[in-house]
Amino acid sequence: MNRASDRVFFALLSIVVGTGCIVTRAQQLPGATPNPQASPAATIASVAPQPLARNLGRDEFTLTTDEGMWLLNDFPSKQLQKLHGFAPSKEWLEHVQLGAVRFAGGSSGSFVSNAGLLMTNHHCASRCIEQLSTAQRDYVKSGFSAKESKDELRCPNIEVNELVAISDITEQVNGATLGRSGAEYHAASKSIQAKIEKDCATSSELRCDVVSLYRGGRYHLYKYRRFQDVRLVFAPEFVAAFFGGDPDNFMFPRYDFDVAFMRVYENGRPLVTPNYFPWSLAGPKEGDLTFVAGHPGHSSRELTVAQLEVLRDRSLPDWLLHLAEGRGMLTEFQRRGTEQKRISSHLLFSVENSFKAIQGRVAALHDPAVFAAKVAEENALRERVSAKPELKATALHAWDDIAEAELRFEAIRLPYLMLEQGRGFWSELFDHARRLLRSTTESTKPNEMRLREYTDAQTPVITRQVGSTAPIYDDLEILTLTHSLTKLREELGPDNLLVTRVLGKLSPLELATRLVKGTRLRDVKVRKALLEGGVSAVAASRDPMLELARAIDPEARAVRKDYEDNVEAVVEKSSELIAQARFDILGTNAYPDATGTLRLSFGRVLGYEEGGKFLSPFTDFRHAFDRATGSEPFLLPKSWLDSKSRLDLSTRLNFCSTNDIIGGNSGSPVLDRDAQIVGIVFDGNIHSLGGDYVYEPKRNRAVGVHSAAIIEALDKIYRAKRLVEELQAARP
Amino acid sequence: MNRASDRVFFALLSIVVGTGCIVTRAQQLPGATPNPQASPAATIASVAPQPLARNLGRDEFTLTTDEGMWLLNDFPSKQLQKLHGFAPSKEWLEHVQLGAVRFAGGSSGSFVSNAGLLMTNHHCASRCIEQLSTAQRDYVKSGFSAKESKDELRCPNIEVNELVAISDITEQVNGATLGRSGAEYHAASKSIQAKIEKDCATSSELRCDVVSLYRGGRYHLYKYRRFQDVRLVFAPEFVAAFFGGDPDNFMFPRYDFDVAFMRVYENGRPLVTPNYFPWSLAGPKEGDLTFVAGHPGHSSRELTVAQLEVLRDRSLPDWLLHLAEGRGMLTEFQRRGTEQKRISSHLLFSVENSFKAIQGRVAALHDPAVFAAKVAEENALRERVSAKPELKATALHAWDDIAEAELRFEAIRLPYLMLEQGRGFWSELFDHARRLLRSTTESTKPNEMRLREYTDAQTPVITRQVGSTAPIYDDLEILTLTHSLTKLREELGPDNLLVTRVLGKLSPLELATRLVKGTRLRDVKVRKALLEGGVSAVAASRDPMLELARAIDPEARAVRKDYEDNVEAVVEKSSELIAQARFDILGTNAYPDATGTLRLSFGRVLGYEEGGKFLSPFTDFRHAFDRATGSEPFLLPKSWLDSKSRLDLSTRLNFCSTNDIIGGNSGSPVLDRDAQIVGIVFDGNIHSLGGDYVYEPKRNRAVGVHSAAIIEALDKIYRAKRLVEELQAARP
Repeated sequence: MNRASDRVFFALLSIVVGTGCIVTRAQQLPGATPNPQASPAATIASVAPQPLARNLGRDEFTLTTDEGMWLLNDFPSKQLQKLHGFAPSKEWLEHVQLGAVRFAGGSSGSFVSNAGLLMTNHHCASRCIEQLSTAQRDYVKSGFSAKESKDELRCPNIEVNELVAISDITEQVNGATLGRSGAEYHAASKSIQAKIEKDCATSSELRCDVVSLYRGGRYHLYKYRRFQDVRLVFAPEFVAAFFGGDPDNFMFPRYDFDVAFMRVYENGRPLVTPNYFPWSLAGPKEGDLTFVAGHPGHSSRELTVAQLEVLRDRSLPDWLLHLAEGRGMLTEFQRRGTEQKRISSHLLFSVENSFKAIQGRVAALHDPAVFAAKVAEENALRERVSAKPELKATALHAWDDIAEAELRFEAIRLPYLMLEQGRGFWSELFDHARRLLRSTTESTKPNEMRLREYTDAQTPVITRQVGSTAPIYDDLEILTLTHSLTKLREELGPDNLLVTRVLGKLSPLELATRLVKGTRLRDVKVRKALLEGGVSAVAASRDPMLELARAIDPEARAVRKDYEDNVEAVVEKSSELIAQARFDILGTNAYPDATGTLRLSFGRVLGYEEGGKFLSPFTDFRHAFDRATGSEPFLLPKSWLDSKSRLDLSTRLNFCSTNDIIGGNSGSPVLDRDAQIVGIVFDGNIHSLGGDYVYEPKRNRAVGVHSAAIIEALDKIYRAKRLVEELQAARP
Repeated sequence: MNRASDRVFFALLSIVVGTGCIVTRAQQLPGATPNPQASPAATIASVAPQPLARNLGRDEFTLTTDEGMWLLNDFPSKQLQKLHGFAPSKEWLEHVQLGAVRFAGGSSGSFVSNAGLLMTNHHCASRCIEQLSTAQRDYVKSGFSAKESKDELRCPNIEVNELVAISDITEQVNGATLGRSGAEYHAASKSIQAKIEKDCATSSELRCDVVSLYRGGRYHLYKYRRFQDVRLVFAPEFVAAFFGGDPDNFMFPRYDFDVAFMRVYENGRPLVTPNYFPWSLAGPKEGDLTFVAGHPGHSSRELTVAQLEVLRDRSLPDWLLHLAEGRGMLTEFQRRGTEQKRISSHLLFSVENSFKAIQGRVAALHDPAVFAAKVAEENALRERVSAKPELKATALHAWDDIAEAELRFEAIRLPYLMLEQGRGFWSELFDHARRLLRSTTESTKPNEMRLREYTDAQTPVITRQVGSTAPIYDDLEILTLTHSLTKLREELGPDNLLVTRVLGKLSPLELATRLVKGTRLRDVKVRKALLEGGVSAVAASRDPMLELARAIDPEARAVRKDYEDNVEAVVEKSSELIAQARFDILGTNAYPDATGTLRLSFGRVLGYEEGGKFLSPFTDFRHAFDRATGSEPFLLPKSWLDSKSRLDLSTRLNFCSTNDIIGGNSGSPVLDRDAQIVGIVFDGNIHSLGGDYVYEPKRNRAVGVHSAAIIEALDKIYRAKRLVEELQAARP
């Protein structure tokens, strides 16, 4: 499935995996390349960006496949008309922009009623479901259904963003960085973006992000309306949502009821909104045109060959090893008991999901045909750059500069990952400690000089994170912190000065236990008091986790600065040059790589060939029952077994389509040409994993839950009458 | 450290890692290439092989570095004289051949007294130590010291082999396979080797192995005297033997007391033997010439570029992932309690050791300089082959044939690993079941037609394994079997027919529990009765583990046959052609790749540069105490702390030398020019890991325990008076 959790550990990972978490540049990894996001100004403008390349024929290209995660403000309607006989209007696109929302932390959702009802995947809501559960009342296991409005439960740590405006700020950004490089480039770029975002986010109800598209070829400012009161309305049992578990993950045929409903509240009441998608009871038929509007997190189709090599040979294998070890550890931890299983299941899911996704990507990069195509494409572009004297002088060195920066990164990769990216301190309590330490320190600096995740525009994010009431489990904290401290020692060496300073004469387990048992940062009140007390309160604190964060901060900041100035800045600037050269030479018949921001893809409901036979694009309830073994992960819940006789077993359950999606798209609505909900995307098939690098039209498929299945199950299995009525009332 | 356990799971792994387990061809992995071992006839011949390439100047080459794992029957004494001023005589070499023994299952040792006293590493003896321990009497933790002869404890499953004769059988083997290819080649090769080995092993006291050297360039027959009554005499505490644990593993400076003593018995009495090495109390000084006589398990210096690519991109990364997950699982399993820790510590050590070793190898293969050198070397040879018309016709296609075979292997890799190599059934009880099923089945066939591990020459091995009294722990069995059944389903898919047949409606945990709790194969008497009862007894058994082994046997045999006929046979035959071409063109100034058989390397006690400073080749007791933290893995045992004041802290503890060693060499004696013991090898440094592919003279180092440290510790820490006296009496 296309998603990861929002822990720091996985926030970094999500960039590599492309799970669409909100990606700050602080979390960049070379080879997975820069993807800046942060923003300025503009009132709530209409969707009217500058044309991408004014001097090139934007309208002249032809679509031949369903490839593309297109910008809504630059959608190829005209071309789609030729390919699929339908051209979305400006109004259609505006409506979709407002109805398709983003979950801060990654993943997608949509409004499905005028009373703020949101639909997303169970696996996107599962951290909330887990956080609302206790040992006595485990909604992960039992599912959840709010009988009445008052039963809807507020999620401790969910924020939903609705994209209200996009504006083009390319000239502003480029003007600020013109003629600069290295640390100067980095400082200028960070500074202008922080300013733009601050000027834009005029209230805490707004969030503004500068989005770098085409790897710096264009900069757009995305302005969101933020909703922080989000309540759980309905969730099925985990086993129904994730039927088939890891073995079936990224597979098709599929039988998952991976859907959940939440509701956005405003001032204590359900949000009243016209921006919702009505429900199609019939759902899609084979061959139907489908749209997916969501937030693909990250793709790597524009990377240079040098960057792909680093991904293939270094970054991805390294992540796989970390995930594999974490998987073994968590799997065994779960066997300790029911409670251990409950508190770690979301984390284990994230680990397994990321593992399988990255494995697929590595396999794609090892596919000689894929890699040869990438090499050929790059060589062709470089040749054409060489042939143009002015481009040759300004842009040809960009590829080599990136390759060199990747080499430079290799030299600092380990300390950077360990100290700055959470690999050495895998702990939510540590994350809290660092957040308190840094946010208070940074807030004393001018906005433009701060670490980017602590600029004024980010204040609401910090406030939400510090005030989160999500439970923190000591057992799990000790487990992950012990593990990561062991890795810290393993990777940097037991004689490394920082390692000896951190561990002293303690073992990783002893230190982790002492820190987790000794810290008071699990208490929201303590955290809020420290945040409000600012630098002096934090400096005065003898909290052991804060002391640890403080002890390693100089080294962590130093390696980050080294990375930002000598790796990231070089890659960003060079990528910009390549993007510009590509515009100059090849025009703009292209969508930019995924950036965790709203995109629209189109496609058709279509099966594909696998193992010598052509698969139908649909599955049904009957075959789900056939496939059940009675044991996880092929266990159907009691609610399903009890309702079997009532169900129309031929109702379509899951389906696949040619839509081009990637991690972060989970929870995206699948829409028909009338912008009605015909399903919800929850996965891509195994052939979609190479989609990080290339879209392969023959077998790359998005996998979704059919709209008919949702009504059938809500009605006959879950007896969720109120919800069914609300969805039916939302019909056009 | 250079060793792995002898479980099936790791037997395969050991080939990849090169840990020197006894490698049967059944355990080959392409990319790690064939390495046949099995054998015929000859009385106890003298060490007089045919010259390697009669038509080429064997004596004309010059040694420039200490590279080489040389054959004792083809040792470059003359060249060594020029390089180091000493030429071992024929008698010197014969004496070393008999004094340096092999442990069946991998790793090395040596006779150090005329009463059958053996020295090896603690980590080579640790399975025995673990098997002799119980929850109440844990020798892993407390160490072991037999006060008197009667206190020496028999190891449940140790066999020691002394190499008594080598003969050249190249012509016999080549004659049998001449003009054949594929399945025919394989059958002919297997058949002649089985015949030769059977004719040689005229009693159960003998073991005979055909050894393929230079990847089929030469075939030698190794005849061993076997000893199965081996008793534990002395072992230090695990924490002293493995001080620094995984973080310090493969590192230098080092502080490990990684030594153990055993004794070979014959007819219930200590073996009387003249073939032992006397003890040097002084040990080596900086710059001293040192010899290491041992059993390097496997190296890959002769592999083709295509094979190295498979290792780098497929096999090794795949193994790393398996090891990483196993490591996470076992680490967490150990935290369940003292008993879990005790019963799994050897296994975890094996996993971590292999992981670190393979990581080093992958890093070496990703070193552009290393790989470019390999490519250049191969291209040069291919060019010279192309230039000779007769070679061009016969040998040039060999490289492409190997590349093609590797591709073919990729298509069957997963089922082959899962079904035939133990990946899907990681369980000692399953190993017993398969052994009983197959040995009884195979014994009804003509010797030459059997699976190679069940030929007559292997009967004593089977008997020993079936009759092993080593304990089997249900908890650990369920853990590893559950894990591997999960992998079976994951890798082959839940809809795979064999997977559904194996699992039915059960989860991997349910099935593993049912099998482990239900089988009676942990009982030696039951196993012996089945072995004696033969095919009919096994067929009549309803033991669930046997039924599982039977249920998957057709598919397992089928994929093995596919592998042997279409991959292994092609690689073997092609490698032979390349080896012959190399002899023709480049002569024989080369040692063959390691094959788990006796080799002699030479070198000097020498430090090296690391991180900008030159390291001394010695460490001492003082710095071990300085490094101790009081927590594992930097914990010194109480015996050390209590004895500190008695010790001469300046006594040298560990040392490094330029000897070219690799996994399997663990436990090898380090000898001076008088063939006196000056130390014992227990590891290579981190720079030695790339030694699988190239020897890097500047920093590749063998790491050993100094002979002076052994006496100092036995005398002052362990008060092992009887042992010290025996070693001192063994002085020349």
